[in-house]
Amino acid sequence: MFAEPTLLERHPCFGGVQEVWEHASKATGTPMRFALFTPPKPGPRPTLWFLSGLTCSEQNVITKGGLQQHAARLGLALVCPDTSPRGLNLPGEADRWDFGLAASYYLDATQSPWSDHYRMERWLIHELPALLAQHFPRLDLGRQSVTGHSMGGHGALVLALRHPGRFRSVSAIAPICHPSACPWGEYAFTQFFGFDRALWAAHDATALVRGGAKAPPLFIDQGDADPFLETQLRPEDLRAACAEAGQLLTLRSWPGYDHGYYFVATVAGDHVEHAAAALVD
Amino acid sequence: MFAEPTLLERHPCFGGVQEVWEHASKATGTPMRFALFTPPKPGPRPTLWFLSGLTCSEQNVITKGGLQQHAARLGLALVCPDTSPRGLNLPGEADRWDFGLAASYYLDATQSPWSDHYRMERWLIHELPALLAQHFPRLDLGRQSVTGHSMGGHGALVLALRHPGRFRSVSAIAPICHPSACPWGEYAFTQFFGFDRALWAAHDATALVRGGAKAPPLFIDQGDADPFLETQLRPEDLRAACAEAGQLLTLRSWPGYDHGYYFVATVAGDHVEHAAAALVD
Repeated sequence: MFAEPTLLERHPCFGGVQEVWEHASKATGTPMRFALFTPPKPGPRPTLWFLSGLTCSEQNVITKGGLQQHAARLGLALVCPDTSPRGLNLPGEADRWDFGLAASYYLDATQSPWSDHYRMERWLIHELPALLAQHFPRLDLGRQSVTGHSMGGHGALVLALRHPGRFRSVSAIAPICHPSACPWGEYAFTQFFGFDRALWAAHDATALVRGGAKAPPLFIDQGDADPFLETQLRPEDLRAACAEAGQLLTLRSWPGYDHGYYFVATVAGDHVEHAAAALVD
Repeated sequence: MFAEPTLLERHPCFGGVQEVWEHASKATGTPMRFALFTPPKPGPRPTLWFLSGLTCSEQNVITKGGLQQHAARLGLALVCPDTSPRGLNLPGEADRWDFGLAASYYLDATQSPWSDHYRMERWLIHELPALLAQHFPRLDLGRQSVTGHSMGGHGALVLALRHPGRFRSVSAIAPICHPSACPWGEYAFTQFFGFDRALWAAHDATALVRGGAKAPPLFIDQGDADPFLETQLRPEDLRAACAEAGQLLTLRSWPGYDHGYYFVATVAGDHVEHAAAALVD
């Protein structure tokens, strides 16, 4: 049983309702926020998770992503979690924009001081779905899909690969595809996991696919003018791993598009439709 | 002839391009910013102006309004100007969120210290269209419409009523309809115009309609849970004036919707379509 979550915001939006909730998380030991969009369709709604990128909170995608109109049309609920625990003031937590606060990589850290609170995977896979099932009968947690942007695209890919059967579909917008081999990921994984490269591989989409993990067909959109493409995102590494391992992947390259929310909004409809095709009968 | 404007931002978006430009304005004596969305259609594009509300810059609507997808589909350019001069540090300019900085009311002030720089009407009606005509042959300034939100809805209504023939259509989202009779407007007009109520009436949509000014049919969307509805926005005053004067008005009330950008995004498509019906052959 979970304590009642607290409603922080509520706005009608495209005929549905956009809310922001907070609850006391046992996984992280902190209050955790998530945004919930409920479409104007009856019955328990299938649920699409959207995981956000570095520096974001739950606010960015709900104000700038433009997903709600598509979720309203297709009858999906959207759950948009915050990107890390907050309010802890751990040493080094806020020193870098690409690590710590708003940069959890959606994993359970094993190294101090992160391991007591940066337990995002258990929050997203166990605690939050159970809380949603208990307090939000408007949602059908038997039908879940996942998507995300940048660090959140990494989260979507890795959670789908690590938890087969949980998500009926998975997609990502400009995801970090190979964190063990990029500066952002190398710093974060060293902090969260230390130097145990086996743990790194267990939270790296490219390494997981190479190791035989399976997910529903991967659907990825990537701008070709994204300044992080070559050094940080590395979708070609994932493409090679998928080709070798027989994991289905659709990787679309968008000429001229960059890494920001103008790109997210441009492809948002396609990612919600990709989820709806798997979730809505 | 105008000095070359400076490009500050450029992002592909829904197949078109979202840009932010700055130029040295003679009207305001300051650098002024405007956002420009160009749709992926050939030829000089008809142009829809979007005037933003209190506290906003040109950024709010381009990141949160969700107009671009509709403008892309319908072939309209969007020009989204900043909401006041900036960088002046005039006494009292930043003391209130509802006056001065980001709160120009889109008029030419007559009172010191505002009258030297708060000359937004001449910027929007004369200087900026001439600069656009010179530097942006991609735009067709012979086909213009105007819309806006809150203070920008006031701006859209008043500019259309004051400049007959300039705009082929006009609409507004939660506009300030009767500024002479609401606290926001009373404070701002006293500052900008002093106590000359004739000047107030010349920049007040309800008073203009009462006085016989004509505009294309007015199209207004208003949330009925908007906290500013009764005290600040007063659409019923405008409705009564239109009924008396024979000015066509469609005023839609949206149950449960508030004053924010979730409402703007929800109705954005209808306002772009309203403009396209008047602008696109």
